[in-house]
Amino acid sequence: MKNYFSINDIDSLDTWVEEAIALKQNPLTNKDLGKDKTIGLLFFNPSLRTRLSTQKAALNLGMNVMVMNFTGEGWSLEYGDGTVMDQGNSEHVKEAAQVVSQYCDVLAIRAFASLKNREDDYSEKVLKSFMEFATIPIVNMESAAGHPLQALTDAITITEHKKANKPKVVLSWAPHPKALPQAVANSFVEMMQQMDAHFVITHPKGFELANHITKEVPIDYNQDNALKDADFVYVKNWSSYHDYGKIGKDSSWKITEEKMKHTANAKFMHCLPVRRNVVVDDKVIDSENSIVIEQANNRTYAAQLVLKKILEKQ
Amino acid sequence: MKNYFSINDIDSLDTWVEEAIALKQNPLTNKDLGKDKTIGLLFFNPSLRTRLSTQKAALNLGMNVMVMNFTGEGWSLEYGDGTVMDQGNSEHVKEAAQVVSQYCDVLAIRAFASLKNREDDYSEKVLKSFMEFATIPIVNMESAAGHPLQALTDAITITEHKKANKPKVVLSWAPHPKALPQAVANSFVEMMQQMDAHFVITHPKGFELANHITKEVPIDYNQDNALKDADFVYVKNWSSYHDYGKIGKDSSWKITEEKMKHTANAKFMHCLPVRRNVVVDDKVIDSENSIVIEQANNRTYAAQLVLKKILEKQ
Amino acid sequence: MKNYFSINDIDSLDTWVEEAIALKQNPLTNKDLGKDKTIGLLFFNPSLRTRLSTQKAALNLGMNVMVMNFTGEGWSLEYGDGTVMDQGNSEHVKEAAQVVSQYCDVLAIRAFASLKNREDDYSEKVLKSFMEFATIPIVNMESAAGHPLQALTDAITITEHKKANKPKVVLSWAPHPKALPQAVANSFVEMMQQMDAHFVITHPKGFELANHITKEVPIDYNQDNALKDADFVYVKNWSSYHDYGKIGKDSSWKITEEKMKHTANAKFMHCLPVRRNVVVDDKVIDSENSIVIEQANNRTYAAQLVLKKILEKQ
Repeated sequence: MKNYFSINDIDSLDTWVEEAIALKQNPLTNKDLGKDKTIGLLFFNPSLRTRLSTQKAALNLGMNVMVMNFTGEGWSLEYGDGTVMDQGNSEHVKEAAQVVSQYCDVLAIRAFASLKNREDDYSEKVLKSFMEFATIPIVNMESAAGHPLQALTDAITITEHKKANKPKVVLSWAPHPKALPQAVANSFVEMMQQMDAHFVITHPKGFELANHITKEVPIDYNQDNALKDADFVYVKNWSSYHDYGKIGKDSSWKITEEKMKHTANAKFMHCLPVRRNVVVDDKVIDSENSIVIEQANNRTYAAQLVLKKILEKQ
Repeated sequence: MKNYFSINDIDSLDTWVEEAIALKQNPLTNKDLGKDKTIGLLFFNPSLRTRLSTQKAALNLGMNVMVMNFTGEGWSLEYGDGTVMDQGNSEHVKEAAQVVSQYCDVLAIRAFASLKNREDDYSEKVLKSFMEFATIPIVNMESAAGHPLQALTDAITITEHKKANKPKVVLSWAPHPKALPQAVANSFVEMMQQMDAHFVITHPKGFELANHITKEVPIDYNQDNALKDADFVYVKNWSSYHDYGKIGKDSSWKITEEKMKHTANAKFMHCLPVRRNVVVDDKVIDSENSIVIEQANNRTYAAQLVLKKILEKQ
Repeated sequence: MKNYFSINDIDSLDTWVEEAIALKQNPLTNKDLGKDKTIGLLFFNPSLRTRLSTQKAALNLGMNVMVMNFTGEGWSLEYGDGTVMDQGNSEHVKEAAQVVSQYCDVLAIRAFASLKNREDDYSEKVLKSFMEFATIPIVNMESAAGHPLQALTDAITITEHKKANKPKVVLSWAPHPKALPQAVANSFVEMMQQMDAHFVITHPKGFELANHITKEVPIDYNQDNALKDADFVYVKNWSSYHDYGKIGKDSSWKITEEKMKHTANAKFMHCLPVRRNVVVDDKVIDSENSIVIEQANNRTYAAQLVLKKILEKQ
């Protein structure tokens, strides 16, 4: 495996999930694999879980970690081809990617959507430019339109907790005071199409995700109906894809105890951070059925598996 | 020991000080103790000594270190119970603390007083919330109302330099252009009540520390008188506790050579950073009796001892 | 070697370059040398290459690395002797340097020119103050008036690529939208006076570097003429030394394919970051003769050699 850009880079999902669960039991088994190897973590945006779990994953593999915050510690990069760089950007990604490739063995990058220009965001210029110019493997720590480490985490978590072979999984949109990217939802939708599950998406009209992502997945605009008999309820806000970046605050979509009663005693999932009592009521996230903390724990093993796969090919 | 929140978490001060002084002689003795253990350092405020000495202490114990600056690298946390999180805060400490607990074995946290609301500051909501929700030991790297790593450092330093069994120690308030927390002074006062010392506090009227901290410690509003025959002069500014956050700039309280003449050739101590010629004259801090640099050196061994105690219980 | 402040700290350039090239072949040969040694990297300014390559160099030597960004993570330092510190600066460099010396074995510092006051900048107060007060070796990661790690890198790179024993090397000024320091140019000029090369500087009138730097080096105001038969073209913008900090944007000085035709098929060098199509045309920097990426790669080995020399003396 060269890069881990999207879940399409997973060659055999079942095997990966199985291996990740095994790693979780013995996280230090492969501590020699990363010896004298260095991962660079480049952050163009804030991060808590991803920052710490990816570092931890690398440490579990015996790697050196170098963290670089582009905002604050570095400068802004130029991505355009042929640009006369007489404005704000100090360095072209062509140089940055090639240079950093010489100091590291793997590069992990976080670069959120701007939510100003859809075409620009979905072109994934940051991640794709680094993949084009870097000479080492690139790992996506959440890009403009995808968050495949989260989606792998989610596959691991659902596999650990499922009781039926083919559980019903519902992705439910939730309100939020700010405009959030579609990245987490996109990768989760892609992942659910790879897993053996009855998968339904529910959201208000106008909050449809991109067709090229949802494909044939059923969409139900009636949240109560969608939640019926669900085994897993995955909750996440995203701003509008069609009216790009439009905020959705409709509080009737908040997940409540009442709504969870429609489900088959479903597990509650969320990628975190979550705004309590806006996205979900305290009673739901604090209930026994909430698995958000264990889900966050699995971030380490998703990252560790991806890095292990990369190191094994080097 | 679960947490190191205050000096009350020290079970036997004499033994701890003795052990710290021994560690200082052979800092790498316990390098296996922290093998494959990870400490997370969470900074909600700037730090130089604490940042580097705590890292160094962890490295001396063979630990991995992950540093996270909440300002800049992360986002602001919510601490309220039941809050509808539709304002600025992106994540509740309930999740943050539980999640980070899964990536680390020990968590050290710095969170200063806001100096806007005394009740709020002295409730120690940041540290206490992390202690409530985290599932790993928490170390206080200076909270709103206390700085117990500094106080342990001070106990070590006084023990190293004292000539009499029961030295006279004076905590003298000093002027400062900005409003500073009472944290360092509070923990030092608590520590001096545990040590065998003649301890006196001196400050202008209106700058009394909290009664629940100073208890029976004598307060002398006459600085010259307080300094008489002192063996150690510990200087520190704090803003008013009673007129909460009020700045005190009275330059007549600055420590000068003249004032030091009242003492019994006292050692000069300060936690640093110090504003020269505002808090203390150059001639005093640059004199042979100034032990501020050695005091800062002991920060490493105070932190290392605390971490060692924690690791030994894990 | 105590410090690596300028290229004058190199005792034998030929040997150093030879050793660095050998290190590059086997970067992990000296991994025991830095065991249980800690380097502190202090950044008063942003950094990409220097930050990561110096970390990598330290890791290659088995050292621990502690990174500290003074902007954001710390506070501003005072450098004046006898200052009454009642303004913005929270700590004097006297304390900061002595304290950090106790937590680290080597200290590397980046502190750019302000470009507001030439005398102040060229006094190198940050680096010189740290060298005065620190008790451990100091490495210059680019100071107000010099960048000796870059210059050593450049010597390595020219040595690797030169075909003649005494190549013609041209330092050509280039336009830039912002005011940049003279540091890189200064150290390169100093280095070229140590190497066996025909060395010429070319820049517009008014952009002369300091006399005490350029000494007897020929200056040609005609760029085309200077480039004639060059083996290496080293391009770099700097703001005016004489009209201190004045920006130079004259686009006729941009390096183009046309201009490179005057050379003897010269290698193109630049320290990076570079503003494409302002400093140099895409066609030149993307050509086979551009060695800027390999030049950046050599940053690791220049830093590693300097650290190795320091560690060997400890």
